[in-house]
Amino acid sequence: MHILVIGGAGMVGRKLIERLARDGRLGDTAITRLTAHDVVPPKLPQAPFETDARVSDISVPGAAAALVAERPDVIFHLAAIVSGEAEADFEKGSRINLDGTRHVFDAVRLIEGYAPRLVFTSSIAVFGAPFPEAIPDEFFHTPLTSYGTQKAIGELLLSDYTRRGFFDGIGIRLPTICVRPGAPNKAASGFFSGIIREPLAGQEAILPVSESVMHWHASPRAAVGFLLHAATIDGRQVGTRRNLTMPGLAVTVGEQIEALRQVAGDKAVARIKRVPDPVIEGIVAGWPRKFDAKRASSLGFVAETSFEEIIRIHIEDELGGRIAD
Amino acid sequence: MHILVIGGAGMVGRKLIERLARDGRLGDTAITRLTAHDVVPPKLPQAPFETDARVSDISVPGAAAALVAERPDVIFHLAAIVSGEAEADFEKGSRINLDGTRHVFDAVRLIEGYAPRLVFTSSIAVFGAPFPEAIPDEFFHTPLTSYGTQKAIGELLLSDYTRRGFFDGIGIRLPTICVRPGAPNKAASGFFSGIIREPLAGQEAILPVSESVMHWHASPRAAVGFLLHAATIDGRQVGTRRNLTMPGLAVTVGEQIEALRQVAGDKAVARIKRVPDPVIEGIVAGWPRKFDAKRASSLGFVAETSFEEIIRIHIEDELGGRIAD
Repeated sequence: MHILVIGGAGMVGRKLIERLARDGRLGDTAITRLTAHDVVPPKLPQAPFETDARVSDISVPGAAAALVAERPDVIFHLAAIVSGEAEADFEKGSRINLDGTRHVFDAVRLIEGYAPRLVFTSSIAVFGAPFPEAIPDEFFHTPLTSYGTQKAIGELLLSDYTRRGFFDGIGIRLPTICVRPGAPNKAASGFFSGIIREPLAGQEAILPVSESVMHWHASPRAAVGFLLHAATIDGRQVGTRRNLTMPGLAVTVGEQIEALRQVAGDKAVARIKRVPDPVIEGIVAGWPRKFDAKRASSLGFVAETSFEEIIRIHIEDELGGRIAD
Repeated sequence: MHILVIGGAGMVGRKLIERLARDGRLGDTAITRLTAHDVVPPKLPQAPFETDARVSDISVPGAAAALVAERPDVIFHLAAIVSGEAEADFEKGSRINLDGTRHVFDAVRLIEGYAPRLVFTSSIAVFGAPFPEAIPDEFFHTPLTSYGTQKAIGELLLSDYTRRGFFDGIGIRLPTICVRPGAPNKAASGFFSGIIREPLAGQEAILPVSESVMHWHASPRAAVGFLLHAATIDGRQVGTRRNLTMPGLAVTVGEQIEALRQVAGDKAVARIKRVPDPVIEGIVAGWPRKFDAKRASSLGFVAETSFEEIIRIHIEDELGGRIAD
């Protein structure tokens, strides 16, 4: 089996590729080759199969066709300009998130007799406030960002291309990934990870919102699990509605902090510094808090059920099991 | 006020232009000029303002920019490849309904300091079965046709372009227009109009489905009313959710026939010939039957409340008040 990962240099792509290299198989099928693609050279791990890296820009006509010409059996399309950047640079976001996705989908469509499984990462940003208390599977898409708009368009195209038999698509709306490894970034959502990651590393973290703010989380490990399950699930079981809100964990910032206390003690919690930021508080107020992700759960997608578990996964996967004293 | 109607040669476009010519104004503002556009020359009625016709293909780069260069104050974008054709010719539907709409939106976006009211006709085809008994305003979009997919994408772009201030958009999802004037066509939905139009004209009509089939209707006159209201409504009142399911009338085929009997007697009803067609029955089974269009109603959009009224409008507007004996 030949797997193509478009957007393989991003955090989720990298973790997916590492997992595939470790497993050597996808579901019951041995992997013979993995092609990792991105606009920057993706890192290739040691793997029990052939690996190759490709660098190109999927928004450039022809690039996507070159990528899929060898007919990979499974395509993961994870490439995207993130929310903040797509909002700041409308044309860039449209070019990559909308045109780029369409180029990938059309490149597959135009190969006669080829209909691979294609897994597309969408986002809970397809939803926009006001929301019911828990957003049901049949709630409509009224994104309040260009990123969310572009992802929602990708979902619609994925469904239609699947219905027409151009490929066999599954779109998954990822929760906010927490604890996101790496350096703090300027994303408005950064603090959700920062208030856990920094204290565990002995650093101070800034909390810009009140403890009552609730949000929807899953670990990077769960995200990779979603991708693998989406790549192997029987399409007939999914039916015609091919885009799914992934399960996650709805917790308040206060509950995140209490979980940190359980796992790492008062000393870690004391490293969280409250610096209210009305701008971030305002942005976050428009975000989804909680979903009732019945369909994905019934289809076998699994997320964490406690925030302690999410913190322990970070300690295992990123900190080698050790936390700062 | 200068008005541009893109897709002005279609049935709804033609009726809109006739109404504007008759009124001489849009809301409280006198019309000084109307530009009617289509791929074929649109008919221009006598009007108390300047009129001009333009012929071009909005899917061709540059065509949309040429159309909006004179900065019309209000743009109606009605142009589309219809459902059946967009399904039969995927590339043509994508080119006109998706690229063409994006070209129109982008042409407006790229004019500095220009943010006209832009009214976009979407469709109840953005919805796909299975449905709740009455589809609420917050129900999600899972179109089962490429046409519905392309319209849903237009809605998403319209919302985002409005949010960003590129224009001031309102998207309206039209019910099935009934009674559709003109010759019978091969659309699967054609019989909803045919079983009224043909008997009133003394002709035989074919009914391919059972009388229990329910569908969502509004007259051509109501459709024009929706467009005028969408063009003049205060955007602040609409808020960020810019796409609205228009009100309509949910009636069964049996109720349509009884209304015909009330208006035109048993002789007209006797001209309906039952010829069951399992293919059409199957297609229609996937269509929306009924909506709970609360938002549009509360915003002042008004449709007919009885099917007799819909029939009488056809007799007045298309038959000069006379029905066949």
